[in-house]
Amino acid sequence: MLNADQWFTEVEKSAASAFSLKGRRVHAEQTPFQHIEIFETERWGYLMVIDGCTMVSTRDNFFYHEMMSHPVLSTHPNPERVVIIGGGDCGTLREVLRHQDVRQATQIDIDERVTRLSEQYFPELCESNDDPRATLAFDDGIAWIRNAPKSSLDVIIVDSTDPVGPAEGLFNVAFYASCREALADDGLFIQQSESPLIHADIFKAMGEAMREAGFKATTPLFFPQPIYPSGWWSATIAHMGELSAPRSDATTSFASALQYYNPATHAAAFAVPPMVRRLISSD
Amino acid sequence: MLNADQWFTEVEKSAASAFSLKGRRVHAEQTPFQHIEIFETERWGYLMVIDGCTMVSTRDNFFYHEMMSHPVLSTHPNPERVVIIGGGDCGTLREVLRHQDVRQATQIDIDERVTRLSEQYFPELCESNDDPRATLAFDDGIAWIRNAPKSSLDVIIVDSTDPVGPAEGLFNVAFYASCREALADDGLFIQQSESPLIHADIFKAMGEAMREAGFKATTPLFFPQPIYPSGWWSATIAHMGELSAPRSDATTSFASALQYYNPATHAAAFAVPPMVRRLISSD
Repeated sequence: MLNADQWFTEVEKSAASAFSLKGRRVHAEQTPFQHIEIFETERWGYLMVIDGCTMVSTRDNFFYHEMMSHPVLSTHPNPERVVIIGGGDCGTLREVLRHQDVRQATQIDIDERVTRLSEQYFPELCESNDDPRATLAFDDGIAWIRNAPKSSLDVIIVDSTDPVGPAEGLFNVAFYASCREALADDGLFIQQSESPLIHADIFKAMGEAMREAGFKATTPLFFPQPIYPSGWWSATIAHMGELSAPRSDATTSFASALQYYNPATHAAAFAVPPMVRRLISSD
Repeated sequence: MLNADQWFTEVEKSAASAFSLKGRRVHAEQTPFQHIEIFETERWGYLMVIDGCTMVSTRDNFFYHEMMSHPVLSTHPNPERVVIIGGGDCGTLREVLRHQDVRQATQIDIDERVTRLSEQYFPELCESNDDPRATLAFDDGIAWIRNAPKSSLDVIIVDSTDPVGPAEGLFNVAFYASCREALADDGLFIQQSESPLIHADIFKAMGEAMREAGFKATTPLFFPQPIYPSGWWSATIAHMGELSAPRSDATTSFASALQYYNPATHAAAFAVPPMVRRLISSD
């Protein structure tokens, strides 16, 4: 039995599983949107928890942040205008700004407190926040996208919490249709799409909703994420044309800064296991 | 806080992390070699625990068993003679026997109780135990390999517990040298090699020891394994020649029985992330 004074535990009810990290809580607050906690762990650095769910740890956030950004930015022929919905910890923004093609990167998180706490506990994730190409907006991402000029964006990255609470509106056909409208024809949309093992229903429904919203096709990718339930995570790319191979030199200039992403893991992430192939093709 | 009456929890001390499944213990025994428990979980079927560590669950064992068997058996040009050291749950044996090239598959687990309990709680993993090509030996795998005729084997699979307790002798140069002697020149050796994130030191040391034992090269592969610490696991192949591409039709005849392995995930598993590349090349 784990002593609650010494361990943070996230119970994933739908899977009847739990994941715990040893550490002590150093901050807790209720914002207008959600409950945020920070833990100082023994072996994973700091851990941010929102509404009881692990969000980001110092030790393993690189999997998620690299895989939410570099696959789409390496694939788009010229990703100049990028929007991140959510992403308040700024780790995805940092990865996006490594790409010199990017001219504007706008992060729209509804909760400014996520960013302020990240600046305090995850300063390395915020190291590019002062980049002149970056804009940090604290606003409703759904309305922001709805009001964006048609065809004005190259890449939309939805780096949100799970589809309950404030992020619920980021997982439906209406939002995806707004995103499609805001993207140029060769634009790419990517959203984290939960665990393909224990959230198979959500994973499948997301791809269906994206296609229902007018995207021509969806392509999932898979990667490890130790602190998330099951440790095996996915993202789904929605697109209008064919998804091309990545530009071979897209990440060469900053390869030494990356921990999980390289051209080999890019290709690997798109391998679809039989269980997922059957899930996608079943009615 | 998780009630110990309703949850099994494995604490991974070196990572100060823990993983839990909800369920009730239905069996426990101390064998001459180790302590074995069986839990009936809410959402993962049955769970076997040895000396406090998760070994196999009904729901997710396919990742491990498919990735310990099909990559090497699809790569070897003609895998007729296969030995499994450990593997008492018989899940790896079942996957090995799907390959019609295999003429003899010998499983050598030191603890017969693992197999007897698997027959009871994981009968699907034992469904090929009566295959005329299969031999189940309950013996010391280290001695068995040491006494095997030189060049008498095509594939050795070490499907063991962690490098403490009864399996400790399966993680050193002397054992690897015996395996190399027992293998034909084009033979392949594979062993589970822990989490590349949280057991990086063991992962690295294993490859070094295999090469020190006379193997020409080692090649790691990576795959999800939700119930194991970090959810991201590895195996390491040791070989004398170059590792060739898999035979394209190696798993075609039983593809519908597989959940994680296919030619795409085969290739994907060999992608080496930068963090592992740096680990391997560092002194």
